[in-house]
Amino acid sequence: MSTLSFTVSGMTCGHCVASVQEEVSEIPAVTEVEAVLETGGLTVTGDNVDPAAVIEAVREAGYQAVAS
Amino acid sequence: MSTLSFTVSGMTCGHCVASVQEEVSEIPAVTEVEAVLETGGLTVTGDNVDPAAVIEAVREAGYQAVAS
Repeated sequence: MSTLSFTVSGMTCGHCVASVQEEVSEIPAVTEVEAVLETGGLTVTGDNVDPAAVIEAVREAGYQAVAS
Repeated sequence: MSTLSFTVSGMTCGHCVASVQEEVSEIPAVTEVEAVLETGGLTVTGDNVDPAAVIEAVREAGYQAVAS
């Protein structure tokens, strides 16, 4: 189990945060997701989570993530 | 059939617009709702729609509307 950190740009409200968290949580390896509106911080916990899959999930939600 | 106009504050993204439109559209007398993110404009069409009901629906969605 490990935690990856990202910075997400474009989240403007709680709905955005919920969309990002929902999309990332659908990645099978992911056990915990937390996105923070104020900072854009996104932490993703799980076993052998592929950072590229997280970035792609955030993109599908309509936002942009970079590893941080 | 008439159209009422409001200005909504606090909508920051398309999710917010959708939330406002959804809540207002649940008012039985309402036949058409359009919210515009960029301007905060909200137009509500229907028969004898109570402006207070629209303002309350917007409040329930988490935003503030004033007649305009």
